[in-house]
Amino acid sequence: MTGRALSTPAEATEDEVRAVAQRARQASFELAALNRGVKDQALHAMAGALEAAAADLLEANAADVAAARESGTAEPLVDRLALNPDRLAAMAQGLREIAALPDPVGEVVRGFTRPNGLQVQQLRVPLGVLAVVYEARPNVTVDAAGLALKSGNASLLRGSASAISSNRALVAVLSEAAVKAGLPEDAVQLAPGTDRSSVTHLLRARGLVDVVIPRGGAELIRYVVENSHVPVIETGTGNVHIYVDAEADLEMAEQIVLNAKTSRPSVCNAAESLLVHRSVAAEFLPRIVSALHERGVLVHGDAYFTAVDPSVRAATDHDWQTEYLALELAARVVADVDEAISHIRQWSSGHSEAIVTRNLDTARRFVSRVDSAAVLVNASTRFIDGAEFGFGAEIGISTQKLHARGPMGLTELTSTKWVVFGDGQIRG
Amino acid sequence: MTGRALSTPAEATEDEVRAVAQRARQASFELAALNRGVKDQALHAMAGALEAAAADLLEANAADVAAARESGTAEPLVDRLALNPDRLAAMAQGLREIAALPDPVGEVVRGFTRPNGLQVQQLRVPLGVLAVVYEARPNVTVDAAGLALKSGNASLLRGSASAISSNRALVAVLSEAAVKAGLPEDAVQLAPGTDRSSVTHLLRARGLVDVVIPRGGAELIRYVVENSHVPVIETGTGNVHIYVDAEADLEMAEQIVLNAKTSRPSVCNAAESLLVHRSVAAEFLPRIVSALHERGVLVHGDAYFTAVDPSVRAATDHDWQTEYLALELAARVVADVDEAISHIRQWSSGHSEAIVTRNLDTARRFVSRVDSAAVLVNASTRFIDGAEFGFGAEIGISTQKLHARGPMGLTELTSTKWVVFGDGQIRG
Repeated sequence: MTGRALSTPAEATEDEVRAVAQRARQASFELAALNRGVKDQALHAMAGALEAAAADLLEANAADVAAARESGTAEPLVDRLALNPDRLAAMAQGLREIAALPDPVGEVVRGFTRPNGLQVQQLRVPLGVLAVVYEARPNVTVDAAGLALKSGNASLLRGSASAISSNRALVAVLSEAAVKAGLPEDAVQLAPGTDRSSVTHLLRARGLVDVVIPRGGAELIRYVVENSHVPVIETGTGNVHIYVDAEADLEMAEQIVLNAKTSRPSVCNAAESLLVHRSVAAEFLPRIVSALHERGVLVHGDAYFTAVDPSVRAATDHDWQTEYLALELAARVVADVDEAISHIRQWSSGHSEAIVTRNLDTARRFVSRVDSAAVLVNASTRFIDGAEFGFGAEIGISTQKLHARGPMGLTELTSTKWVVFGDGQIRG
Repeated sequence: MTGRALSTPAEATEDEVRAVAQRARQASFELAALNRGVKDQALHAMAGALEAAAADLLEANAADVAAARESGTAEPLVDRLALNPDRLAAMAQGLREIAALPDPVGEVVRGFTRPNGLQVQQLRVPLGVLAVVYEARPNVTVDAAGLALKSGNASLLRGSASAISSNRALVAVLSEAAVKAGLPEDAVQLAPGTDRSSVTHLLRARGLVDVVIPRGGAELIRYVVENSHVPVIETGTGNVHIYVDAEADLEMAEQIVLNAKTSRPSVCNAAESLLVHRSVAAEFLPRIVSALHERGVLVHGDAYFTAVDPSVRAATDHDWQTEYLALELAARVVADVDEAISHIRQWSSGHSEAIVTRNLDTARRFVSRVDSAAVLVNASTRFIDGAEFGFGAEIGISTQKLHARGPMGLTELTSTKWVVFGDGQIRG
């Protein structure tokens, strides 16, 4: 039954989707007025409920896994989909960690008293209704629900058809626990439908949905951006560059490149392109190419790199723009830091870029002229991560410039409201 | 010649629009690295250039005004379009006031050192390329160019066909003065074309344009929101409510309603709807209706209001949702503050709402449960304005929740960038 959801995506009409969004909006009004204590109790209750329902959740997940295998899904994707007791425990722990984080709602961002006596405050408030459109991993269902709840937002969770059985079971457990703990009905909901058109209905629910966050591949993100009438926060596309400068500590450079490329190739803060200053190419290229080769990294390089080792393939423009998310790396030699900056401006997705150098002027020039969400000097790009920044769980890493940029914590899931107190002031 | 632009909007191809946007992007890289001194000198030079070119600018504007009259444009719209020496002087003065404002670029928003020694800073940076799509008033051309420049952004200005002659002349003068003062070419540009399709090309220039801000009527804003692939900041639609509570000072309430409705009916922070608590209706309705009537305000009211005076028309749902921008007001009686809040949730555009009350609990309930960009207690909604907040010139008042909400000053025209300094840290 649940398995069938994969082969035959369920449709949802626009009216069905809007009805669910309308309920989320009503819940959001109640959520916005809740104190931290109530929200944290609900998060702990949700964590406990996940553990208590482990058997049912694993059974529901097994249906998705079986359907995925039936349909010939590749094992790495099946692994992303699969739950086990450890993964469930980690999801519950994640909710408890969110409960331990400070509540951003109610923070006074700015405040002043005007000459006419008006007292003006800018207060942090929830966004309202948060829609998250994502692929595969069921843990996103729990993370997103928890982060949205803690920041006072109602959530509409739209996972992929391949995880529908798991997501239905997870949301049922989370929602029941939340309501028992005193939260409004419909604070956490699964958006109806598993076909593309039901996503489109969600993207058109202006006035009901306040923001849509796509989490997934470039194709999903492009579809959301190009079809949404609701504001979107783009996350997670990382064509990440490392530039090794003429004055780099080459041992440090080698360690940073290897860490950024190989410590976890499948994530968005992994390095995808290497740029090396011409003056250190003769010394650095042979050692980095062999070190990468040892670790099974396929290098797509320019003429300098292909000349170093037969294992290096000739790079094309396709390589400069590709986020491999695998043990592959595009590599070229540049004349100077400005050519490195130009290359990054042309090809980067604006996620994170690093420079390795001992020269302060060069570091400052790179930092001020590279326009990405994060710019690192002498450190691995793998540190661009909400947990590494101390934000706790993150809903994603924004690669756009509006509203949020870089790792998104709870604060990035809020808006602000101006509150003005007077005693009868009118404008002359 | 220039007048013809009105009757026959000039088309621009997607390639032409993208080429201009690409030049703006190049300029934005240079602008982002400029110090405040250079930007302020340029703003003063631009102000001086406007005054020096007054005769040419007025002549160019006269062509637009003549074309508008020829085509039978209503006089109030012709007046919005028309320039005169005083209005030009005010535009120049506006640029000097922008020069006097602090530079938001480079502000350290947050900063911390991680246990592993990584030094992390979140720095304020320009958005990059700012496109503004607006109607009629040529002063928007100067305000937007000045605010974009001060915040380090390149601007693509897309005014209406009716002001094309004025806008071409203004941008030519501003751009020449800016370049002479040391700014990059293409820091300030008019987006090509005056037809709808050329706007669409601008809205599709993802990766070249960082944000689009529509300034104009609801139809223009809806078109931009529904067609843009570039992030949008919505501004300026204000279906503004005033709720007069059971415990209001009725003299204060009358003054606030009259000020909010009649001091400048054509602006977005003017009141459009009045909600009155049933318990004070018998006393307040007759006095407010006659006071509004005296000032030429047409009231569209519920049965309570129509019973008070024959001049009151029966209100329909159309009235509850209309932003009149004229001497008209929708009015009804409500049972309590919660019915007022429900009415506002159903009909408000989320701009600004005010309550008049002496009861602290009621005030706090209204403030926490009304989800608009601004909520006022015992003050006129006309104060929700960048200048009234001390922000200096504003590019608009955001009615969306993402990125900016309420009056938008220079800070709202910036993004942030994470800068991380290390000494070789790699992730375990």
